[in-house]
Amino acid sequence: MRSEPSRQARAGPHHMAGNVRPASRSVCPIACKQQPEFQSRGDHAMTAQQARGLHADNGSKDMSGLDALFRPRAVALIGASEDPRKIGGRPLRYMREAGSEIAIYPVNPTRETVQGYKAYPSVGAIPDQVDQAILAVPASLAEGAVAECLAAGVRSLVMFTAGFGEAGDEGKAAQDRLSAMVKAAGARLLGPNAMGLFNTADKVYSTFSTAMDRGTPAVGRVGMVSQSGAVGSYLQNLAISRGLKISKFVATGNEADVQAQECLEWMASDPDTDLLMLYLEGCRDGAGLIRALRTARENGKPVVVLKAGKTEAGQAVAASHTGALAGSGEVFDAVLREGGAYRAETLTEMVDVAYACSLGVLNPSNDLGIITVSGGVGVMATDAAVEANLDMPPISEAAFADIASKLPLAVGRNPLDTTAQTVGDRSIFTRSVDIMLGDRDYGSVMIFLANAGLNPKDMGLMREPLEEIRRAHPGTQLALCMQSRAEIRADFEDLGYLVFDDPVHCVKALAGAMRLAQTLNTPLPAPTENPAKRVAFATAPNEAEAKALLAEAGVAFAEERVAADAEAAVRAADAIGYPVVVKVLSADIAHKSEVGGVAVGLADGEAVRAAFERVTANARKAEPNAVLSGVTVAKMLQGGTQTIIGAHRDPTFGPVVMFGLGGIYTEVLKDTVLRLAPVTHETALQMIREIRTFPVLDGARGQEKADLDAIADTIVAVSRFIAAQGSEVESVEINPFIALPEGGAGVDALIVVS
Amino acid sequence: MRSEPSRQARAGPHHMAGNVRPASRSVCPIACKQQPEFQSRGDHAMTAQQARGLHADNGSKDMSGLDALFRPRAVALIGASEDPRKIGGRPLRYMREAGSEIAIYPVNPTRETVQGYKAYPSVGAIPDQVDQAILAVPASLAEGAVAECLAAGVRSLVMFTAGFGEAGDEGKAAQDRLSAMVKAAGARLLGPNAMGLFNTADKVYSTFSTAMDRGTPAVGRVGMVSQSGAVGSYLQNLAISRGLKISKFVATGNEADVQAQECLEWMASDPDTDLLMLYLEGCRDGAGLIRALRTARENGKPVVVLKAGKTEAGQAVAASHTGALAGSGEVFDAVLREGGAYRAETLTEMVDVAYACSLGVLNPSNDLGIITVSGGVGVMATDAAVEANLDMPPISEAAFADIASKLPLAVGRNPLDTTAQTVGDRSIFTRSVDIMLGDRDYGSVMIFLANAGLNPKDMGLMREPLEEIRRAHPGTQLALCMQSRAEIRADFEDLGYLVFDDPVHCVKALAGAMRLAQTLNTPLPAPTENPAKRVAFATAPNEAEAKALLAEAGVAFAEERVAADAEAAVRAADAIGYPVVVKVLSADIAHKSEVGGVAVGLADGEAVRAAFERVTANARKAEPNAVLSGVTVAKMLQGGTQTIIGAHRDPTFGPVVMFGLGGIYTEVLKDTVLRLAPVTHETALQMIREIRTFPVLDGARGQEKADLDAIADTIVAVSRFIAAQGSEVESVEINPFIALPEGGAGVDALIVVS
Repeated sequence: MRSEPSRQARAGPHHMAGNVRPASRSVCPIACKQQPEFQSRGDHAMTAQQARGLHADNGSKDMSGLDALFRPRAVALIGASEDPRKIGGRPLRYMREAGSEIAIYPVNPTRETVQGYKAYPSVGAIPDQVDQAILAVPASLAEGAVAECLAAGVRSLVMFTAGFGEAGDEGKAAQDRLSAMVKAAGARLLGPNAMGLFNTADKVYSTFSTAMDRGTPAVGRVGMVSQSGAVGSYLQNLAISRGLKISKFVATGNEADVQAQECLEWMASDPDTDLLMLYLEGCRDGAGLIRALRTARENGKPVVVLKAGKTEAGQAVAASHTGALAGSGEVFDAVLREGGAYRAETLTEMVDVAYACSLGVLNPSNDLGIITVSGGVGVMATDAAVEANLDMPPISEAAFADIASKLPLAVGRNPLDTTAQTVGDRSIFTRSVDIMLGDRDYGSVMIFLANAGLNPKDMGLMREPLEEIRRAHPGTQLALCMQSRAEIRADFEDLGYLVFDDPVHCVKALAGAMRLAQTLNTPLPAPTENPAKRVAFATAPNEAEAKALLAEAGVAFAEERVAADAEAAVRAADAIGYPVVVKVLSADIAHKSEVGGVAVGLADGEAVRAAFERVTANARKAEPNAVLSGVTVAKMLQGGTQTIIGAHRDPTFGPVVMFGLGGIYTEVLKDTVLRLAPVTHETALQMIREIRTFPVLDGARGQEKADLDAIADTIVAVSRFIAAQGSEVESVEINPFIALPEGGAGVDALIVVS
Repeated sequence: MRSEPSRQARAGPHHMAGNVRPASRSVCPIACKQQPEFQSRGDHAMTAQQARGLHADNGSKDMSGLDALFRPRAVALIGASEDPRKIGGRPLRYMREAGSEIAIYPVNPTRETVQGYKAYPSVGAIPDQVDQAILAVPASLAEGAVAECLAAGVRSLVMFTAGFGEAGDEGKAAQDRLSAMVKAAGARLLGPNAMGLFNTADKVYSTFSTAMDRGTPAVGRVGMVSQSGAVGSYLQNLAISRGLKISKFVATGNEADVQAQECLEWMASDPDTDLLMLYLEGCRDGAGLIRALRTARENGKPVVVLKAGKTEAGQAVAASHTGALAGSGEVFDAVLREGGAYRAETLTEMVDVAYACSLGVLNPSNDLGIITVSGGVGVMATDAAVEANLDMPPISEAAFADIASKLPLAVGRNPLDTTAQTVGDRSIFTRSVDIMLGDRDYGSVMIFLANAGLNPKDMGLMREPLEEIRRAHPGTQLALCMQSRAEIRADFEDLGYLVFDDPVHCVKALAGAMRLAQTLNTPLPAPTENPAKRVAFATAPNEAEAKALLAEAGVAFAEERVAADAEAAVRAADAIGYPVVVKVLSADIAHKSEVGGVAVGLADGEAVRAAFERVTANARKAEPNAVLSGVTVAKMLQGGTQTIIGAHRDPTFGPVVMFGLGGIYTEVLKDTVLRLAPVTHETALQMIREIRTFPVLDGARGQEKADLDAIADTIVAVSRFIAAQGSEVESVEINPFIALPEGGAGVDALIVVS
């Protein structure tokens, strides 16, 4: 995100703003004019419109009401404590220690002041428009306190109090009442059971997180959103100890009102935030998450996500933890990928990628260069690059010859292994880096220096040439991989180098930052138009009706006729041409094969007549109550490859479309790919190429290549069809769709309505 | 590896042995009686037998000659330098600084002493049996120096000098001459181009690694073997900064003589070593590696391996780096898994698993318990546990009720989420840990404490109860996951807790240590008997001959006859029963289908007659020079599932056997599994269950279950067959082998001989 190779010298994580103010109770027990900073900043009684417009200086109206949470001008603390270690004392202490200039109003009916601030007996007694009230009161008093705040016109609430949705049915009911109250008042509520939020630039510390015990964090440009307070503050510490600096942080707790994706969307528009980190266990508003990712992309901000609950067991734990539907892992994957976010597997990886984006240079080129003092590290890093789909183009022979003239044992044009020869003369190493970077325009470069970072003298010798190289290639992402002392690491980070200690983690992080750069360099797809029409379903459609609807939507099917009796079936078969397939027709029977309702390979009229009787009898026997509407007689397709094209409505994200090869590939190997519906033809082609068994469609094992455009057309049609329907359509499936060398045709179709 | 919960207080990585001796040149320029430590330890002139028997005090004879390398009593340094920073000065300096008591003889014709040790003009002038000579001379002088050492009866050489096998054809030739010289002399040579070795207990530092610049490492029980010096010393630093302590370290360089797997085998028998770490790029002696892994297992020592060169691109880099054949990734995987080693993907993971084995408790139970102050971390850790195939059985309802009576908001019986309630009263947290561990006998437990490790007061409150818990469960692997200060981490490690900072890494490392414990708790399989006979192949067998040989070895085939002409083919088909398959028979045509040499589904004599003419004509046209031996007529099997059972000779590891489903599964999805041949019936059944498509054989999608024993019998027979043959048999393949509900039968067979 750094646009120039050098940047401001960084303060350590323990850096404190200069204007820290001591606790001042002994100086002036009652806050007064002498200490205006501890009072309201003025009599800025705002209209509701003004309060809503807090964000207006960013050029956009705050429709979400979250400005009052993230950028309040006046904060009240209900349940304020004199003890700065208590939950009700910590926000005051943090804002006091950070020298916050916002208006702070402790509410405590038993005291004149709290931690040096003038106290008020109730929120109603505060002579100011309160943007945000922090609630640090016991659960038994919480509902009353919320009501009082809302009555006093408070715009937003941060609710530390626990014992609601996470604590059984009674708590859930109380939480629902809270939601209703704030909604009715047009206010916003963070929590309950939330660790709160902070905003480093404006010195708002509406949180009880003990992570601040070692000092409030330095001002930075990384926004963090976490559904879990504990994970959030853990991640905050991991990130800070890695050199990341935070703009805004929020932990959303029980999400009775304000949800994680709303906070993400707000930060995606926050001019003080350049990079977003999101920890998610579930999502209550899929469309909101998609919108937030889109906003981040529009505004050029990379998003790094850890979505816990990948496995079913993990999802079950997540459900008991947050009460949010964890959602299908595959659909989340698709949403995050389509939204251009990076999905990390561990907190370490999440911080690694954010570090590479935040402290490094975002370059979308896929080309990685590696220069190393160890051939073995070159091998490991090459493995990692291949697995991350990075390219490693070699330097020119001339450039290698130039390096080899100085380093006769040098091996390889990328990775370039200088060998330990350079340990004695570091200038030859940096000269080699210079030649390599001058020869080829790599997007990212990893420079492996082994243990050199432990040796100040060694690094001192290389500092100037590496600074010069950094300056000469301002657009290249440059990373050192070495073991290093903290101060050496910080020094080279200040020069504009990333510093890692594990070569595989380094390559993976460079790849992650590169993918995010690619996303941000790709224009957002235009909203997909959907010409499909919504159908009014009186009853569940049978196979023939489903086919007719989908044919109208653009799906090709094998030639087929409906026949009410055996003789009609024979006439239909004669007209279509043999061989044919006969299937019982009934909206009540979804799985026709399983009841013996399908006869294939019928070569003549006699076979068709017998088949009619057989499939009808089988169906009647298996499903005595099913209404039978005769049979379908269809052309039996020869050859081709069986695929499945389906769609369903995800409870979180709405309509999605699925593609895979038929049979075992889908059912045993789960070799399918998903996208949010509707999709474009181009996206459908991508989907086809993403399945592991794509070579089967691409002519592997001497098969004919399938007509990919015909498959893609069908995926598009199915995706548009489901996207146009209401929530009564649960799923659509064309199984199989036979992919042929030219064209293709659906053989069976099913539309499930609720 | 700790057998008791507590252990010796550990010295930090910079810890130096107490008897460090200062450089003493100014005190006594000529080494003399006053400083006997710098002299030979005595006139222990040994016979060759005695030298060979250096390892005899371990109760085993050293057949490898490596004792002289790893535990020398007298070391000469050829090219000794007065400058302790130079390659030729470093070994002297390290041994001097560590207070080594072995006899050290610098060889330098221009000086009376080197770094305070008496110098000798030549190795021949040393009045002692030299066990090991270190060569730090230029490449141009190296051959002469080696010859001189061998002439003087030196038992082993450590050769730092580079510019041999890694430096072109001339260097390769020189390296081959070195190999021949040491072999002829019955000595051993480490290198050339080797970073050398060290032995902390005996204070042998025959290395120029700069990793020692901050002091020689503390004495420990971890053995490290690396083919790369740079990776080895990097790994050494990573491991030491993680608290691991090393017994022996070796980097094998060009491996002109001594190879990595030999060193591994030696350390597997070293009584001072409990745990082995191996970094490998290739292997020149597969049988040796298998033997080394077996020895480690017999001696109860876990082995953690990083094999670089997983991808083809990585393998190509490895080949240029070490010259060793990188070998097939799949076969390496099989060898390491069968050998019971843990294969890590990154250096960090390698150190994590070694740390969990070395500082922790090895418990083979699959049951993991998780107790956490963060529900979100419980979700992530559960995902990680599922992916690592760990079980997470819940505590009893009574135990949970007991915890919930103290912590009303506690959620879940495993993971148990105490929530942040316990932050205020840590005794409730430790009490909950106590109840959880008392209720259920977990093999491993992760305790997530968020940022508590940054807070000495918090950790102080928990120290005594956690110490008591550690004492009460001496057999349980206990890990804390938290962010922590270094001194707090070290303190809890001393109590017997592992300390991690990433919950997913923690679970993965616990799983790794558990798998290694399981391996060491499983008796070594008895050597497999192989009743198969070696066949003398005059020429390549045709299909019928191959089938006859394999049928004799125990493989069932579909009924089949050979026919020389069309009429004989019809008679054969009449006898077998229709439908039949007719295939052209020729040892010169491996892929019969591709030349049109196969006709299937032949329903009567006329069809067989026509098929004979057709397949013969097609084969003649496609392969005019092939010798045709008529056709085979075989029963056409109906139904069943196509599988492939194959075997080949791996260039590194010898005969391996392979199993997979036929067609696309093998060729596109690479869904196959490998083992070293021969295998037992039990192993063959494991192989069948390991393929991703196993559900297809197990009755998925309404198919009949295949007769797994029949498949396993065939795998065993093929594995025995190839294992009994000489190197002229390159591969064997039964493709397809049709798996049936009862029994099964091969349809085609191919034996490729060179």
